[in-house]
Amino acid sequence: MYRVYGDILSGNCYKIKLLLELLQLPHEWVHVSVLAGETRTPDFIKMNRNAKIPVLEIAGPDYLCESNAILNYLAEGTDYLPAQGLARARVLQWQFFEQYSHEPYIAVARFINRFLGLPPERAEEYAAKQEGGHKALAVMEQQLGEAPYLVGATPTIADISLYAYTHVAPDGGFSLDAYPQIRAWLQRIEALPHYVGIE
Amino acid sequence: MYRVYGDILSGNCYKIKLLLELLQLPHEWVHVSVLAGETRTPDFIKMNRNAKIPVLEIAGPDYLCESNAILNYLAEGTDYLPAQGLARARVLQWQFFEQYSHEPYIAVARFINRFLGLPPERAEEYAAKQEGGHKALAVMEQQLGEAPYLVGATPTIADISLYAYTHVAPDGGFSLDAYPQIRAWLQRIEALPHYVGIE
Ligand SMILES: N[C@@H](CCC(=O)N[C@@H](CS)C(=O)NCC(=O)O)C(=O)O
Ligand SMILES: N[C@@H](CCC(=O)N[C@@H](CS)C(=O)NCC(=O)O)C(=O)O
Repeated sequence: MYRVYGDILSGNCYKIKLLLELLQLPHEWVHVSVLAGETRTPDFIKMNRNAKIPVLEIAGPDYLCESNAILNYLAEGTDYLPAQGLARARVLQWQFFEQYSHEPYIAVARFINRFLGLPPERAEEYAAKQEGGHKALAVMEQQLGEAPYLVGATPTIADISLYAYTHVAPDGGFSLDAYPQIRAWLQRIEALPHYVGIE
Repeated sequence: MYRVYGDILSGNCYKIKLLLELLQLPHEWVHVSVLAGETRTPDFIKMNRNAKIPVLEIAGPDYLCESNAILNYLAEGTDYLPAQGLARARVLQWQFFEQYSHEPYIAVARFINRFLGLPPERAEEYAAKQEGGHKALAVMEQQLGEAPYLVGATPTIADISLYAYTHVAPDGGFSLDAYPQIRAWLQRIEALPHYVGIE
């Protein structure tokens, strides 16, 4: 059975929860709190030298880190990951877009606002995140005007990766009013059998 | 034949060049300059809505973006990408580590220092990048003390992704003196048949 070390309120961890539920894979969830320093203990560092959640424990035990690598591992052989070729690479394109052009703006703004309560010393950083976040949302909006999911007609782990922080983007000050295609896509994902929310 | 749109001085683009040469895949290279605004033209945006290099053009034409997604596409079926299982996911783990925990520190510090000449208004940002960059190098150093390459005994595209900005880390103010395992690994990569440097 899989064991996941993470905090469901973190979008990077929630991605794993959502896929495990959509695929109905049995698993155990071990809560790890970043703010309480639990990612910095010697035991945790043994699982992930980079000291971040989520971590997937696989029989062995072996430990796999990086949320999107974990999604690829779990989705192998399922409809959520095309077996080969350009469609498979396209899933990765969107996942790398997520980690480089979306998460560093939207997730960080959400963290500053929702979890830290927008303290004055981070107000400038918060404001600076808005432009990059809206740029990423605009890229998604255009893509979702062409197909119901990011890589075509059916959902893949690219959608799961980008759903995680997009559906809570308003927590980071990003209104989704100007993004009708994104809002329709969020609803399609929320209607999938066995969908679970972040809390 | 593949066509690559990019700038060889950008590590994200150079990754593609290095793999194409290691695999001896015929290709055409089209130089695109970010500083000259060439990633913001309407024709470029048609290839990549996210307005970044590198972009791979595949017969069709189809366009694939994100350096690490391109590496996965090109390496499929070769020794540079394990066919399945945990080893394959491990390659992705390192590539997501590269984009999230390494490149935003080391590549950005290099850009500020080497390409912008460390202007006073970016000195604080430059200094702030040093800690994160050294943290990423320390994670690699430990891993490379356990195996000759990041995912075991032979080189994979995880090594190519991390080689790109690690070998030019001194341009960003990161001395590699304290990282003997990394320096030995750089030499192993530079000894691979058909290796090409960044310039
Ligand atoms: N690229 C990583 C990012 C993971 C990440 O940043 N996790 C945060 C919680 S959302 C964390 O553990 N932060 C603790 C730290 O960086 O010290 C992934 O996708 O898994
Ligand atoms: N995550 C992307 C990053 C690509 C990237 O940041 N490219 C830079 C050059 S190294 C660029 O095109 N920047 C232009 C811009 O962001 O406007 C990848 O790995 O391909």
